[in-house]
Amino acid sequence: MRNSTRSRVDPFIVMDVMEAARRAEEAGRHIIHMEVGQPGTGAPKGALEALGSRMNSDAMGYTVALGLPALRQRIAQLYGDWYGVDLNPERVIVTSGSSAGFLLAFTALFDSGDRVGIGAPGYPSYRQILRALGLQPVDLPTAPEHRLQPVAADFAGLDLAGLMVASPANPTGTMLGREALGALIGAAQGQGASFISDEIYHGLEYEAKAVTALEISDEVYVINSFSKYFSMTGWRVGWMVVPEDHIRTIERLAQNMFICAPHASQVAALAAMDCEDELQANVDVYRRNRQLMLEGLPEAGFTNIAPPDGAFYVYADVSDLTEDSRAFAEEILAQAGVAVTPGLDFDPARGHHTLRFSYARATGDIEEGLNRLRKFMRDRG
Amino acid sequence: MRNSTRSRVDPFIVMDVMEAARRAEEAGRHIIHMEVGQPGTGAPKGALEALGSRMNSDAMGYTVALGLPALRQRIAQLYGDWYGVDLNPERVIVTSGSSAGFLLAFTALFDSGDRVGIGAPGYPSYRQILRALGLQPVDLPTAPEHRLQPVAADFAGLDLAGLMVASPANPTGTMLGREALGALIGAAQGQGASFISDEIYHGLEYEAKAVTALEISDEVYVINSFSKYFSMTGWRVGWMVVPEDHIRTIERLAQNMFICAPHASQVAALAAMDCEDELQANVDVYRRNRQLMLEGLPEAGFTNIAPPDGAFYVYADVSDLTEDSRAFAEEILAQAGVAVTPGLDFDPARGHHTLRFSYARATGDIEEGLNRLRKFMRDRG
Repeated sequence: MRNSTRSRVDPFIVMDVMEAARRAEEAGRHIIHMEVGQPGTGAPKGALEALGSRMNSDAMGYTVALGLPALRQRIAQLYGDWYGVDLNPERVIVTSGSSAGFLLAFTALFDSGDRVGIGAPGYPSYRQILRALGLQPVDLPTAPEHRLQPVAADFAGLDLAGLMVASPANPTGTMLGREALGALIGAAQGQGASFISDEIYHGLEYEAKAVTALEISDEVYVINSFSKYFSMTGWRVGWMVVPEDHIRTIERLAQNMFICAPHASQVAALAAMDCEDELQANVDVYRRNRQLMLEGLPEAGFTNIAPPDGAFYVYADVSDLTEDSRAFAEEILAQAGVAVTPGLDFDPARGHHTLRFSYARATGDIEEGLNRLRKFMRDRG
Repeated sequence: MRNSTRSRVDPFIVMDVMEAARRAEEAGRHIIHMEVGQPGTGAPKGALEALGSRMNSDAMGYTVALGLPALRQRIAQLYGDWYGVDLNPERVIVTSGSSAGFLLAFTALFDSGDRVGIGAPGYPSYRQILRALGLQPVDLPTAPEHRLQPVAADFAGLDLAGLMVASPANPTGTMLGREALGALIGAAQGQGASFISDEIYHGLEYEAKAVTALEISDEVYVINSFSKYFSMTGWRVGWMVVPEDHIRTIERLAQNMFICAPHASQVAALAAMDCEDELQANVDVYRRNRQLMLEGLPEAGFTNIAPPDGAFYVYADVSDLTEDSRAFAEEILAQAGVAVTPGLDFDPARGHHTLRFSYARATGDIEEGLNRLRKFMRDRG
């Protein structure tokens, strides 16, 4: 049996780091994990309680394809609470994590061979999912002066069928303000490119509230998730907001491609949305961690960092320290016992001189990690 | 924003039946549900207990992409227990239901425009998922004398990149014996077509044990699920077995397209595999229901039925009764208060004279449904 051409997606380089970290731990070393892209916390207690009680009284078979009506309603309400946007709950599609959102959005919008612009650096799976669907990812190299986010000039004349942006972004944590986001949406629409806004780090912002694309236009796809702010990665539940005249198309695709998002996860997610206190306590930890990173990383010698407006990442240009981020990450793991991610997964062309540091774990870990990084860099000279 | 061409998938006609049934219930009528494709039972008690205890002690973040190692190991053991097949656990991929299995298999094996043969009648989503991925489903009309399963002659010279079969099948419940399955695998391999075996109804068989494609060849993809025998539809967890040299490709695709199957569902699924007593009690109900159907449907006048070897469906040729199965299903719902599925979803070309009856619900419902069908047909004359 042959594999298809479209299945030749790149391996994650971070997996090598994680595997090396695992081996080091097996050998008895203590490793600080600044490579992980998920909260160390679990689902809020109220979410687990709601599920525990429901699963003993309900067979929890398939839900309707677009998700539990009460959950769609509650998510629509979030747009009122967070952004002052009055959203028709029918436009909310519950998905099996943002992963399913990407698959549904790309399938609903693009045909084989279509070109879709994505910022570089960016979440590596955008590129790989597009390829797996027979579509063409088009990397848009971003500039530090634009907070490593794309601007309209980056894709003028590129004949894109779609443009995908993320704010706050992975791996940079940078955000698009209302004006910058509006300019991108306008430029994409002006060129007939469908606009997809990845907003899965919304709620994890530290200086200003993130702007949703729905504040600017109804003619966009918005993808979000319960994985980050709601701390429910392993539950694989998220949502998407689509234009009204796309609901039926998405419903038919979702019925066939997924049947439904996990029922148990939908029950837990609905309850999680009322666990504000616990979730804000998580954000307070990230805020404290971020402050430590903003002080500690430059002290250690990582001075060239993108403004980490949100999410739980710091993206550092280390071109003054190395031309081989992969080897450098291996060195940091081996010498300092800190796992970090080389930039190559996020930016194949320029990631050889960048690193991503995650501060998603407990504050004690961040303090210890920064101490180790300071010592490592001092010793390295 | 425009939708893509590939997103123009057909609506499910059964959805109209379900909506009509829902409206009838809202209006106070009592409806017997013979249209549903899922067990009325929930996950086994042991599965819920295992999850309830785990979720209070574990953050349950992402699992590794291929699934919890203990679950992969346990599934491999099932192949020893059920079929006497010694299976390398590395070849077992835990998926977000068989839906994700189809997406992964089709993506791993086929490129845009590739032709994939599927039996007609068959599970409607095969056709729709193939289209959504930019692939070409090729319906293979099957014959009653072949138990409505494809045979090698049906696809000779059709230039297929792949062949997908199901045994027990939906909507017919018919199975492929070892010889028939072996002939199909041989013919597909001889033509360079990748062979995919949908085995999600295994465990629900009443006369003879279903044969897995893995008894015949390692060079196949096998797709299975915890939805049917294990009674866990809403949990969205299943598995796939792939050739050894395809594991890495599937791992990379799964990392990007899904990250992982729901962690909670994996924990529950692992425990479900040790709930043999409860699961066999469910099968006993299906067995009793099937016997009632085999007696009651012919008594009512549905005499032309495919041999329902497994699953929980009976597929009836009603060409002696109607040339419009959709209208006939509406009539049965309106007059008899029994919801059944017209064959059009399963066989667009010939489904206008077939119906699918499901016997997945409680025995009392089946008895009442058969009484109503007998009376309806008597009155219809």
